[in-house]
Amino acid sequence: MTVHIGLVGTGTVGGGCIDIIQNHKDDFKRHLGVDIELTQVCSRNPEQAIAHGVADRYTQDYHTIINNPDIDIVIELIGGTTVAHDVVCDALRAGKNVVTANKALMATCGHEVMSLADQADKEIAFEAAVGGGIPIIDPLKHSLIANEDMTVMGIVNGTTNYMLTRMDQDGMSYEDALREAQEKGFAEADPSADVDGYDAAAKIAILASIAFNSRVNMDEVPTEGIRSISPVDLQSARDMGYCVKLLAIAHRTEKGIDVRVHPTMLPLEHPLASVNGVFNAIYVIGDAVGETMFFGEGAGAGPAASAVMGDVLEVARHVAAGVSPLVGCTCTDTLPLMPMEELTTKYYLRFVVEDCSGVLASTADVFARHGVSVHSVIQRGAKSGKSVDLVYVTHTAQERDIRAVIEEICSLDGVLVNHTRPTVIRVES
Amino acid sequence: MTVHIGLVGTGTVGGGCIDIIQNHKDDFKRHLGVDIELTQVCSRNPEQAIAHGVADRYTQDYHTIINNPDIDIVIELIGGTTVAHDVVCDALRAGKNVVTANKALMATCGHEVMSLADQADKEIAFEAAVGGGIPIIDPLKHSLIANEDMTVMGIVNGTTNYMLTRMDQDGMSYEDALREAQEKGFAEADPSADVDGYDAAAKIAILASIAFNSRVNMDEVPTEGIRSISPVDLQSARDMGYCVKLLAIAHRTEKGIDVRVHPTMLPLEHPLASVNGVFNAIYVIGDAVGETMFFGEGAGAGPAASAVMGDVLEVARHVAAGVSPLVGCTCTDTLPLMPMEELTTKYYLRFVVEDCSGVLASTADVFARHGVSVHSVIQRGAKSGKSVDLVYVTHTAQERDIRAVIEEICSLDGVLVNHTRPTVIRVES
Repeated sequence: MTVHIGLVGTGTVGGGCIDIIQNHKDDFKRHLGVDIELTQVCSRNPEQAIAHGVADRYTQDYHTIINNPDIDIVIELIGGTTVAHDVVCDALRAGKNVVTANKALMATCGHEVMSLADQADKEIAFEAAVGGGIPIIDPLKHSLIANEDMTVMGIVNGTTNYMLTRMDQDGMSYEDALREAQEKGFAEADPSADVDGYDAAAKIAILASIAFNSRVNMDEVPTEGIRSISPVDLQSARDMGYCVKLLAIAHRTEKGIDVRVHPTMLPLEHPLASVNGVFNAIYVIGDAVGETMFFGEGAGAGPAASAVMGDVLEVARHVAAGVSPLVGCTCTDTLPLMPMEELTTKYYLRFVVEDCSGVLASTADVFARHGVSVHSVIQRGAKSGKSVDLVYVTHTAQERDIRAVIEEICSLDGVLVNHTRPTVIRVES
Repeated sequence: MTVHIGLVGTGTVGGGCIDIIQNHKDDFKRHLGVDIELTQVCSRNPEQAIAHGVADRYTQDYHTIINNPDIDIVIELIGGTTVAHDVVCDALRAGKNVVTANKALMATCGHEVMSLADQADKEIAFEAAVGGGIPIIDPLKHSLIANEDMTVMGIVNGTTNYMLTRMDQDGMSYEDALREAQEKGFAEADPSADVDGYDAAAKIAILASIAFNSRVNMDEVPTEGIRSISPVDLQSARDMGYCVKLLAIAHRTEKGIDVRVHPTMLPLEHPLASVNGVFNAIYVIGDAVGETMFFGEGAGAGPAASAVMGDVLEVARHVAAGVSPLVGCTCTDTLPLMPMEELTTKYYLRFVVEDCSGVLASTADVFARHGVSVHSVIQRGAKSGKSVDLVYVTHTAQERDIRAVIEEICSLDGVLVNHTRPTVIRVES
């Protein structure tokens, strides 16, 4: 039988999917026994459809696809949580299987989408939502299911990893690194989703939901971005044998699931430490499998289309075999999230302070009064200037105490020069 | 429904599987909706069954399991191609699904086993056969199927990777590294399968068969091990910006599938270059996905049991859903293998020669006469001794010419001191 596909969205990834289908339809039939047909293509931009040679299947209204009784699988590649939400939910209600790359949708409306799929007895697949072309959702839902306890740590945003790599290896400032990332097309004009960590938060919410069998939405993920990171932090980290990565972290604790996104100091020997540039990697420790890592290109037409079309072909196999979804929503438990204040780890804190006597003593006193043990303190910065960087590294401390320390130090005279908020980097050992 | 499992083999991996089932049976039921029951356990060693608390289900005869009409899935963890062959084939003929970690069996009798599974309409799963706990077979058969052109390069033997790491980082001799690997239990008393590359050859045969949809058996894989590698080679490589790894390589060429196992010089920036110790990693370039890498622990009770039990739970899902195998044998094409003589690459060649005049000139002459262009030549070794190492690195050359060069040089006077065969390392750029 032929499995009919409707594609909604013909941007970079959608175009990549069209190309794969056009080039390899016969290969897929021969190798996988699956005959897929791109039946309709919806886009706001007819010229994109024309450019990819599918003008004959073009429609400007996604309802045409959803109402087409021949269509078995709808691919949603618009992104966002407005129109894309309606496309995905309407398609499921209409009894279509859905493949999407939409991280924001799955990380905010995951429960609704999975429930609709369950009610319709249809599949919803979203491998491309995390890590671009890297297989990670499928391994978590299949190969690694014998692992009942997991830690997930990922470099899941290529834009910020590119910026941090440039700042680290070339001493580039945050502003220059951002500008270059924008020029190369790695960062949007409004870079907030990347540099403030929201993109990574959506991705770890999805991974945590699968790894812990308990729904995590992206707005529940404590998230800090990289805006306060400067080359001095990367240099300081390197001097201590660490690199700095924007990590998305999820692990199980006795106090609940600990899920968070923030700049993190990682030992240089860690497998994630050598993941540079726009590459992504997800590092998973399982109680049975031990350490594993999944590395690859986190964005771009080819990698994302590889993941989308992998899902499409897998769902098409099931459609052709007349098989109902084998794995639906995996959130069978309802676990509490650990409040961020309960976190205990080591901290790197950099304050910009006036270069005058007494500041060191008064800041050190704050740590002491809150019972936070200091591992090291270094004063960095040009002696000629009026401000210096005061870098503290603590022993293991509790987030709640660190926050109190920061607030109190920021209220001291001679701290917060130019209203610069302190830089906080948590340390993974 | 309950899915009944029969386990054959209670060594390290079998023990790990028993433990996972005993510890997590209820979790699997809740999270995956699959109720698995370890119904029978077969072993030559009743004490192993007793130690893992399954004495009540023990049998010494695997036929008891195969003839048990209740059993849905047989796990074969004996290894080898004699009794294990009969267990797997008899189980399939008896209409059981089979999960195995047996690389040798799949790489020599893959066609027979897959055909039996197909005839019986049952599943044969073997994720644990390659890369221990690393999901790689499942991604190749599912997530990455939209990629029609692939290159696979793997560090798939932890023993040799451990030895090469020790020789590289600590200057240890081959003999000492082997002795240490044996003491730590990483290498067998007879280390041939590891150090001569046969284990890696079996694994790349399996991966190539899946990646190229064409059967490759391990005896068709040109295979060289690491016996001739010495610390001087690792140091020479490092001086040139390379490391040396025993790589299993498979890629598609116009002359056929190029599959081989041999020590390989890899640039230090390559993702595989930082995979050290007993870790494994499989690096895959796909025409859509670009560069990806799958990293993890290649051996041991936990990792291998993770892969085996992942397969068991996946098959159990299908059994519980009453679903026939969705992916059978993937070898739908019959592609020729590229003869090794057709290989073109760069070569590192080390000859042990007498430290006397004329040897350099006469060896250089051989390269010239065979049209092999030399990139660099370095003479290394203690001047006090009678022999020195003569290290040639060539520009891109053809294997056939290199072999002729080696034979001719080995017949020269003053070469082949102590009957030491030259060291050949192919260079990946």
